[in-house]
Amino acid sequence: MCPHGSPLTPKGFNRPARYSGDTMAPEPVETLCALDYRYGRDVMKALFTDQARLEFYLVVEAALAQAQAQLGLIPTDHAKAITKAARSGQVQAGRVAEIEGEIRHDIMAVVKALAEQCEPVEAGGSIHFGATSNDIIDTANGLQFKAGLQLLQDGVERLIGALSRQAKAHRVTPMLGRTHAQWAVPTTFGLKMAVYALEMGRHGHRLRELTPRLVTGKLLGVVGTGASLHPHTLEVQTRVMKDLGLNEPLATTQILQRDRIAELVLWGANLAASLEKFTTEVRNLQRSELAEAHEGFDRARQVGSSTMPHKRNPIASENVSGLARMVRALVTPALENCVQWHERDLTNSSGERLLIPHFFVLLDDLLHKTAAIFTNLYVDAERMAANLAAARGLNLAEAVMMALARKGMDRQQAHELVRKAAMTVESGGAEGPSLGEVLSEDSEVTALLGPDELRAALDPANYLGHAGELVDRALDKLGQ
Amino acid sequence: MCPHGSPLTPKGFNRPARYSGDTMAPEPVETLCALDYRYGRDVMKALFTDQARLEFYLVVEAALAQAQAQLGLIPTDHAKAITKAARSGQVQAGRVAEIEGEIRHDIMAVVKALAEQCEPVEAGGSIHFGATSNDIIDTANGLQFKAGLQLLQDGVERLIGALSRQAKAHRVTPMLGRTHAQWAVPTTFGLKMAVYALEMGRHGHRLRELTPRLVTGKLLGVVGTGASLHPHTLEVQTRVMKDLGLNEPLATTQILQRDRIAELVLWGANLAASLEKFTTEVRNLQRSELAEAHEGFDRARQVGSSTMPHKRNPIASENVSGLARMVRALVTPALENCVQWHERDLTNSSGERLLIPHFFVLLDDLLHKTAAIFTNLYVDAERMAANLAAARGLNLAEAVMMALARKGMDRQQAHELVRKAAMTVESGGAEGPSLGEVLSEDSEVTALLGPDELRAALDPANYLGHAGELVDRALDKLGQ
Amino acid sequence: MCPHGSPLTPKGFNRPARYSGDTMAPEPVETLCALDYRYGRDVMKALFTDQARLEFYLVVEAALAQAQAQLGLIPTDHAKAITKAARSGQVQAGRVAEIEGEIRHDIMAVVKALAEQCEPVEAGGSIHFGATSNDIIDTANGLQFKAGLQLLQDGVERLIGALSRQAKAHRVTPMLGRTHAQWAVPTTFGLKMAVYALEMGRHGHRLRELTPRLVTGKLLGVVGTGASLHPHTLEVQTRVMKDLGLNEPLATTQILQRDRIAELVLWGANLAASLEKFTTEVRNLQRSELAEAHEGFDRARQVGSSTMPHKRNPIASENVSGLARMVRALVTPALENCVQWHERDLTNSSGERLLIPHFFVLLDDLLHKTAAIFTNLYVDAERMAANLAAARGLNLAEAVMMALARKGMDRQQAHELVRKAAMTVESGGAEGPSLGEVLSEDSEVTALLGPDELRAALDPANYLGHAGELVDRALDKLGQ
Amino acid sequence: MCPHGSPLTPKGFNRPARYSGDTMAPEPVETLCALDYRYGRDVMKALFTDQARLEFYLVVEAALAQAQAQLGLIPTDHAKAITKAARSGQVQAGRVAEIEGEIRHDIMAVVKALAEQCEPVEAGGSIHFGATSNDIIDTANGLQFKAGLQLLQDGVERLIGALSRQAKAHRVTPMLGRTHAQWAVPTTFGLKMAVYALEMGRHGHRLRELTPRLVTGKLLGVVGTGASLHPHTLEVQTRVMKDLGLNEPLATTQILQRDRIAELVLWGANLAASLEKFTTEVRNLQRSELAEAHEGFDRARQVGSSTMPHKRNPIASENVSGLARMVRALVTPALENCVQWHERDLTNSSGERLLIPHFFVLLDDLLHKTAAIFTNLYVDAERMAANLAAARGLNLAEAVMMALARKGMDRQQAHELVRKAAMTVESGGAEGPSLGEVLSEDSEVTALLGPDELRAALDPANYLGHAGELVDRALDKLGQ
Repeated sequence: MCPHGSPLTPKGFNRPARYSGDTMAPEPVETLCALDYRYGRDVMKALFTDQARLEFYLVVEAALAQAQAQLGLIPTDHAKAITKAARSGQVQAGRVAEIEGEIRHDIMAVVKALAEQCEPVEAGGSIHFGATSNDIIDTANGLQFKAGLQLLQDGVERLIGALSRQAKAHRVTPMLGRTHAQWAVPTTFGLKMAVYALEMGRHGHRLRELTPRLVTGKLLGVVGTGASLHPHTLEVQTRVMKDLGLNEPLATTQILQRDRIAELVLWGANLAASLEKFTTEVRNLQRSELAEAHEGFDRARQVGSSTMPHKRNPIASENVSGLARMVRALVTPALENCVQWHERDLTNSSGERLLIPHFFVLLDDLLHKTAAIFTNLYVDAERMAANLAAARGLNLAEAVMMALARKGMDRQQAHELVRKAAMTVESGGAEGPSLGEVLSEDSEVTALLGPDELRAALDPANYLGHAGELVDRALDKLGQ
Repeated sequence: MCPHGSPLTPKGFNRPARYSGDTMAPEPVETLCALDYRYGRDVMKALFTDQARLEFYLVVEAALAQAQAQLGLIPTDHAKAITKAARSGQVQAGRVAEIEGEIRHDIMAVVKALAEQCEPVEAGGSIHFGATSNDIIDTANGLQFKAGLQLLQDGVERLIGALSRQAKAHRVTPMLGRTHAQWAVPTTFGLKMAVYALEMGRHGHRLRELTPRLVTGKLLGVVGTGASLHPHTLEVQTRVMKDLGLNEPLATTQILQRDRIAELVLWGANLAASLEKFTTEVRNLQRSELAEAHEGFDRARQVGSSTMPHKRNPIASENVSGLARMVRALVTPALENCVQWHERDLTNSSGERLLIPHFFVLLDDLLHKTAAIFTNLYVDAERMAANLAAARGLNLAEAVMMALARKGMDRQQAHELVRKAAMTVESGGAEGPSLGEVLSEDSEVTALLGPDELRAALDPANYLGHAGELVDRALDKLGQ
Repeated sequence: MCPHGSPLTPKGFNRPARYSGDTMAPEPVETLCALDYRYGRDVMKALFTDQARLEFYLVVEAALAQAQAQLGLIPTDHAKAITKAARSGQVQAGRVAEIEGEIRHDIMAVVKALAEQCEPVEAGGSIHFGATSNDIIDTANGLQFKAGLQLLQDGVERLIGALSRQAKAHRVTPMLGRTHAQWAVPTTFGLKMAVYALEMGRHGHRLRELTPRLVTGKLLGVVGTGASLHPHTLEVQTRVMKDLGLNEPLATTQILQRDRIAELVLWGANLAASLEKFTTEVRNLQRSELAEAHEGFDRARQVGSSTMPHKRNPIASENVSGLARMVRALVTPALENCVQWHERDLTNSSGERLLIPHFFVLLDDLLHKTAAIFTNLYVDAERMAANLAAARGLNLAEAVMMALARKGMDRQQAHELVRKAAMTVESGGAEGPSLGEVLSEDSEVTALLGPDELRAALDPANYLGHAGELVDRALDKLGQ
Repeated sequence: MCPHGSPLTPKGFNRPARYSGDTMAPEPVETLCALDYRYGRDVMKALFTDQARLEFYLVVEAALAQAQAQLGLIPTDHAKAITKAARSGQVQAGRVAEIEGEIRHDIMAVVKALAEQCEPVEAGGSIHFGATSNDIIDTANGLQFKAGLQLLQDGVERLIGALSRQAKAHRVTPMLGRTHAQWAVPTTFGLKMAVYALEMGRHGHRLRELTPRLVTGKLLGVVGTGASLHPHTLEVQTRVMKDLGLNEPLATTQILQRDRIAELVLWGANLAASLEKFTTEVRNLQRSELAEAHEGFDRARQVGSSTMPHKRNPIASENVSGLARMVRALVTPALENCVQWHERDLTNSSGERLLIPHFFVLLDDLLHKTAAIFTNLYVDAERMAANLAAARGLNLAEAVMMALARKGMDRQQAHELVRKAAMTVESGGAEGPSLGEVLSEDSEVTALLGPDELRAALDPANYLGHAGELVDRALDKLGQ
């Protein structure tokens, strides 16, 4: 980082110059944001870097020039030159930043940097004709959203697939149901997974609903009247949007109203909450005391704790839980940015530069991490069975009561009988008798239920209700 | 409040007993929440009071009994008796609270209170057969949502209507466009309203998309397997949901997953942000310096300021802005409640008791207040024209430039000429010449544009672009 | 609720008129907000009801009159009459609402309602002399905060007491430490409680820091210049604040800037997060599989589940977790309300009517519920010991390693030896040998450690480090 | 970015490969986060980059080794070697990332990378002796906070200075007070600034209150008992903290409880709301219609709008408003991270990697941008006077009323007389007579007030109340 030794050196150990807050010129800094050095998939990042954003601007400027040339508003050879320069790869974010540093206007800087690459040079005068900055910005946003939403949809599908495969594999694998974190009647791991898969299916459905609203551009000028190119503005807009594969807005101010971006972020926040739930479940099932499932773990290399080899720290799930909160954090500014004055103020702009890239990259990262967790999840059906057994039948009292009632015992009587037996079991503690043992010594019970019948009534596998059917129904609906 | 004088009396003036924090038994308190004494429409409140909630529970318990009787799971006369008791109006929230105080279980208390009203008394034993509390709660939620969402949809429509009428009336009423709160090219008040109406149209569309997900109940028992009534559970659920006009879920845990409620609250938060924007615009247009529009004001009675009769305080708009933030506040808990452990924990329950009623009543109130503001909004077209004039043509430089270019002047030359003239105007201040005056003394201009042509180019009414057409398009789309 | 039968009756069962959204006039509604029928302590509610708020206004108006009379600004007998009327208990919220309905100005309505009670009637003309509404509102807020903050401080202290008593009682009660929800080295229940008590101590400390800023009033008039009573304004303000026991501001606009209220709400949100953490810990320790602690439970009456007597649903803790989120929800509007235009807009007002009472009542309720949970918490030291034993020494590998190193074994060698033994234990599963058993068959170990020494090294009670000392230090600091 | 032409080239114009979402390998990406290419001061960034974080870890590991050597727990030459390696500048973030990629444990990777630089190599075995990862992380956090908080305090002071200078310069510069964005009685620009400066003073005071809690480290091991180095742990901790200039905690779990970080973020959020308020005020005063103040503007170079030279877009203020919301966004995750399971889970970790650097860099950036805005703010006292005049005395009705009362007119009569005159003025519109003109024709007025007296009563400069005194008082308190 620094050629002549660590920044820790010059001013002694405990107060390195770097963090002393004094006035010496700071040294060149490294990357600050964990999305720039640690988290996120490259394929999504590639859409939202500074350079990528610039390239989307260029795409829009070129499409605008093409449409204007078609309508005779600018010379055809200008449009060609603009398009060529836009495609040349020679317009670089660094140069734009340089120009912006002088004129303090970001899109004007893009226009100038693009004009520098135009051949002949006069073509530069036709760039951005009659347009306002936000015609470019909002339309470029539409392009980014289009590509980004497709990646998010892929991520949603991948996770649905992972959950569905677990649902199918463990369709009727019995395990303790738990409510209030207390033992309840049995459920199946497959049903748990099916409920999650359906939830992801709803998120995917919502995404399909909102996509057309997000994949929209805008070319209506400074206040939305399209006065500068009137009477051609609407036709220009139609052509550009068709060319770029975007939807046209019906009416705007200078900008597309921000309820669209808010809607997207809110959707992602809801999804992030689901991901936190799913991974919290992994963290809970992976508890040392439950150990019913655990994240894939590279036993050979991964360091949990060198002296505590039992430790199976669910670090991927914890990572997802934590980053999911960072996605949800974006809700508040996304909503606050909606409140614009008149035909627009600029208060949304600085925040959106951070918010939009962080949103897409984080959410994409979370979807794929969660999909990997559930793809590689180790599900321990034996341990699930052992944990069910450890409940000593207490969670199956309802099942026996129903069995007794079916054999003709009065329902209230059956309830009371079973309730008392359960209390005996409960007071006996972990080493005491099971509910089956207590009931098998009750003559009222044995009069109606033979040993096999009693055992059957207390077998969790027989008290799974419609679980398998519900899983099938869910997978069928999800097309899995 | 207190029969023997104010609570201020006993301990002197500055430290009344009531707020001294000491240990004396507190006196009976009055209503605390402003929704209980100040805000909200009765028709919406009527759905979410304690008693209303109880009545929805009774509706569900009765429907459950009816379905079970049809399938022979409980005696038909029991179902009749349960239904009659549920409809009797004799089951009261006060009695339920009493029972709950003893047994500390809310739905069990409802069951007992309902059983007390059953004739014959044994029918009470068939209430809630095989059900779990959340079968009742989530299904009752579905009913409340169904009714509440209809009211919200009505409110959305009412506001679309109010905005559309203003859009139509002021389709081409010119006014200053403003960006960064600076004068920009002209727009029309109608276009501004059309943009808002379309935004409300999107919210209405989103509401229709989410409604089926919200209007859903659930009768799948303790952990979602439906074991207690197996193999009849799915059939019971189908019948009850059909009877109540609700959708069936594909699979659940003990509860419907909370992404549905989150989705609703997030939608409402986005809508609330729009309402804050619309009313912020009123507050801005109503500024003393702009005075282009103002809220209806009862001049005869309303006290703005007794000595400052010019004051037109936009108090309804301020009220909406403030309460809109309270709706948005509900986003965070709604998302946090999604993260449930295993087949459910109860952490969502206490919050939802507050969150759901507050959400519906506040949002409904806001929609109708905003609709009233825009219905009664006084729009001052004359003042808009005067304010346009005060810009002395500065905001129409672009229009003249285009006019000169159409007459054959080189575009760069026209730009430079107009830019200089505008700077002359600007440096002259409010009392200096207008752009028209400066340009009419420039021979390059007068060589191309006659006085009438120059005047026309500087007439805001001639630089409204497609505004009228955009308004028509918007209203057509909205069916207004 | 309705004299002629349930609202369910008239239009049939599934679509009661009450929730049909049709146009019939709604019937009188019951209480909507759960704070008005279910949650919250009366002593706190008594400070924030509509009537209480009015009474605080009256206190301020009276104090203002008194100070003005002392300075000769109004007649002394007017001040006496105003004070008497303010104390009379005859000025009622209902009457104020009536007047406000007409003139649409809340504080003017208070002034008129107070004037109605003045004897002689002319004294009414001296009420509110030279004051602006927010002089009264913000000063009344200061009084409410003063009383409310004292109650909150009491709640904080009560919870510190409850946690400290548990810390003291279980100072060295060994239990499994858990990180990532995996078994780690032992800790003590007392240390856990001490950490929580210290956290509450920090919240209490913060509360003492912010209190002087909150307990502040304001009497500087319409825009903060104090022009109306100049040159007496500052003197009037000083006298009133002294009389009411409030601090004076140095300078204000029409209102006290809202960073103060925001600060309070943010503090409470942080506290609420702590309470959610503490009660989440209870919920986790109360899990069926851990069962190391549980909430007090009225076995005779409380219904957990009639057929599952083992169920110890931690409903109080779940209730706290849920309501804590509702407190945190208030952060966003509290911050948004800070952004005021010019000398004030009114956008904070409607929200604060909800926000302030909900904040105080919820937080107070949470503090006392949490204090009750920890006061009555049943801590099962035997189960803690059994759970420690179930770890079969895996969590004590570090302790043995240290013991071997102390006996002279090379540290790397000790680490490797213990690591291998731990892996043997871990692969053996719940029924396999413990770490002690494996190590007692290793000659390298037995050469250095006798059986008693090995047993001692694996006794959790011997590996508690400084736990007791840390507890003592914490309690000492907290004065417990 | 790409050596062989733009990514736009290969697959045609409108669908560049880069954003098509297809499966081709993404090209290397550029910087994603705007903090890495656009916003933020280097001096603050230098504290929070990946490399900086690593260097703080090294500082802590070295201090730990030194303290342990002093106590004889590790060899002195090992401590020397560790310290030398830590200071060498040879331990690089890239190498650590490489190792972490293999072992998936971040702090272990740091330890290994540090060990690689130790000479002799065995010294590496003494690194991190008896410590747990979070001993290092939380203590390094303490160091970052210490340096970062100092910079933030500097920023607060700088802004207090800028506001105070404006307050002093415009101590009694009269301007329209505005409430509800309506003209109210006059205030002074200096008083407005003084109110803001005092608000910043409160934030600075709060920062001093919270700093000791934040500037705290922790060396109590895996679960907080300090067992691994018992009986030396507390002594080691004391020495390390003293060496690093940090405070010691009284008791912890594995980590410092997160109420501290939450407190910091909440403080910053409150501050950010203030900054949004201040800059919103600039945006409002800079409105074309008000034009009472505007941001410094480089007329020669800055492009507002090329054809609209009047445009003074308050882009710096808009930038601050937008980024302030991003700071506030961090509140929710900071609070959610507080809820930790048992002795810690890891859910806070991933989020804090983003949250902490973003928080410090954004807030620092905002403070300095806002300070620059107010330092360079152009305040137009003439325009303020002109705007006051445009109110035609309506906002001074109260002043005349007081003047008449002082001359002996009955207060109610004076009120009525002035009220009527004001209504005449108001109905006359912008071109009608002023209040002075109307009153000068009223014989009841002229009987009591001579022309000069009436003029004096209507001179805003005479109705500024205590404004100057309040400004002095504020500046004095702030030491400015």
